[in-house]
Amino acid sequence: MPEPRLARLVQAMRAQGLEAVALNPGPSLFYLTGLSFHLMERPVIALITLDQRPCLVLPELEREKGEASEGLDLFSYGEAEDSRLQSLMQACASRGLPGRRIGIEPLRFRVYELRLLEQASPGSPLVSADGALGALRAAKDDSEVVAIRHAVAIAEAALAASLPLIRMGMTERELASELTLQLLRAGSDPELPFSPIVAAGPNSALPHAVPGDRPLQAGDLLILDWGATSRGYISDLTRTLAVGEAEAELGRIHEIVQQANAAGRWAVMPEGTCAGVDQAARAVITASGYGDQFTHRTGHGIGLEAHEAPYIRGDNAQRLAPGMVFTVEPGIYLPGRGGVRVEDNVLVTVEGGESLSTFPRDLKVVG
Amino acid sequence: MPEPRLARLVQAMRAQGLEAVALNPGPSLFYLTGLSFHLMERPVIALITLDQRPCLVLPELEREKGEASEGLDLFSYGEAEDSRLQSLMQACASRGLPGRRIGIEPLRFRVYELRLLEQASPGSPLVSADGALGALRAAKDDSEVVAIRHAVAIAEAALAASLPLIRMGMTERELASELTLQLLRAGSDPELPFSPIVAAGPNSALPHAVPGDRPLQAGDLLILDWGATSRGYISDLTRTLAVGEAEAELGRIHEIVQQANAAGRWAVMPEGTCAGVDQAARAVITASGYGDQFTHRTGHGIGLEAHEAPYIRGDNAQRLAPGMVFTVEPGIYLPGRGGVRVEDNVLVTVEGGESLSTFPRDLKVVG
Repeated sequence: MPEPRLARLVQAMRAQGLEAVALNPGPSLFYLTGLSFHLMERPVIALITLDQRPCLVLPELEREKGEASEGLDLFSYGEAEDSRLQSLMQACASRGLPGRRIGIEPLRFRVYELRLLEQASPGSPLVSADGALGALRAAKDDSEVVAIRHAVAIAEAALAASLPLIRMGMTERELASELTLQLLRAGSDPELPFSPIVAAGPNSALPHAVPGDRPLQAGDLLILDWGATSRGYISDLTRTLAVGEAEAELGRIHEIVQQANAAGRWAVMPEGTCAGVDQAARAVITASGYGDQFTHRTGHGIGLEAHEAPYIRGDNAQRLAPGMVFTVEPGIYLPGRGGVRVEDNVLVTVEGGESLSTFPRDLKVVG
Repeated sequence: MPEPRLARLVQAMRAQGLEAVALNPGPSLFYLTGLSFHLMERPVIALITLDQRPCLVLPELEREKGEASEGLDLFSYGEAEDSRLQSLMQACASRGLPGRRIGIEPLRFRVYELRLLEQASPGSPLVSADGALGALRAAKDDSEVVAIRHAVAIAEAALAASLPLIRMGMTERELASELTLQLLRAGSDPELPFSPIVAAGPNSALPHAVPGDRPLQAGDLLILDWGATSRGYISDLTRTLAVGEAEAELGRIHEIVQQANAAGRWAVMPEGTCAGVDQAARAVITASGYGDQFTHRTGHGIGLEAHEAPYIRGDNAQRLAPGMVFTVEPGIYLPGRGGVRVEDNVLVTVEGGESLSTFPRDLKVVG
């Protein structure tokens, strides 16, 4: 377990009144231990306290993997189902946890693990650790920024390789597969942050569309929302293209969104706030009369997760700080007709903001 | 929402004493509604009752996607955070849920959704719905078996395309990327069931190894554990290869595991049990003196999930039934030296068992 990260977590735990943190497999566990586990029906739970060695409850058949992370005491269990709870009880007892206040991640911890922990550490209030962990992970260190830069570069290379292959009549699903292939070929880790979204025509008006079997047609707007993974860190970009000539209003909303994206990026500075970035991007769209068609927040943090703190929302007064990396992704969606989104990944620096992504943002015509 | 599946769920709910089921994004929601959502910080929760129309709480920006599934009432919320709970409260109130017994999936439902539901449906016991949903999804219908067959065929084609590319000196990670590329090229959905496991030499002794940067060396056993996705349904196969000549004991454990795999497959029959399959495979390995080195259960169900019911364990007396599909994957692991696993996907038929995977199981020499 990297000592500086553990020390920062303990500091954040004290600030939040937490006596322990319990983590299941996911980005926070990876951040602290370098260990990746699948989230399955066999529990893996790490317990971190203020002043004892961290420990990890895990299946016997993962034990050797657990031993790869130094400074962790291991409590392993066999294939008998009741041995899972017994092992967690031993771990909790060894750390004196019963009755103490334990932080968990509500968006990660499952009811399954919650019920096990309630039994293994009776009397413990189980509260959110998001305040402690979110702050810790939001400000990236240099090695993390390098990895995100690399993930952005891979994603941009994959788009550059895919663009010449786009043809009228190709389906969204075919293009999504091609983009996935190019991401891997360009060097992404095999586990992509999310399956590429390829949404054309009416489907592009759905911010979270799933690629389907509709062929690309002349006049379609075509949204590509894709990202790569490099050493666990992700990128998350969007560009909107036109298949053949787009009708005038669709071209116009692209111009507006491109302006809003630029306004959002320019509002990034260390003395700024999340709300300030959202408002800067949103103001452009609202002033153009499309405020009701910008149906989501302006962005979200990225790192080991595709969505993490800080959230770029109008009601989030959180201050920006150097090392934060987040998306700026305004959009306009005209139901049944088409949508536009332009998304970049921006790093807060000591001087202002730097867009890690630079792929041209104009409405490129393809097909 | 497909009526027959909903009707079967309602029947299973009555049998389990559930008055409602609450589902978050994942395979059960997809099974019942055909809808895929990312699991994020914005909640998506479906509520199914015994005698009212099912409803879905979702973000406004996903509303159009929700409308694609017929027979669902939608309760959507905007970007203000408190509107999420309000929307869920309205949905629960409309179905008269407060005080009623609600089933959830403990391995899927997160603490986040649990806390929202506790507030939105006060006085409701929130219990496991696994009994109702597991039974429902375990017996596959014809269209599901067709999809799994296709996922197996894609996986086998990808292995066939990858084998000639394996070279001494290649890293586990490079081979995992190549296998991923070939899975997509062979027609897998972009979202693979899991990142391929490529584990060579000492790493092959870890059943859940992560591909690393160690180059393939002469004498290595090489485990490939990979699968494809077709229309949401998955395959999950393993073959073990030898890089150059394997030492005698490693060759011998491969023979034993191959026998155990065959014994497990032959024990599959509609009047059999999960425990019977596990025991048949395990008996071969135990008789050979390697019982302690077969550290996991013999298999698990597959379908929309890579791990689902039925679990092929020695302590699971559950009866097999036509339509069930599961893995048979015995292994022997010699720490620090190497491991062997041979995994097939087997369908329970009215006459017995059919292995959907037929790729040769012998210890093939590569490199």
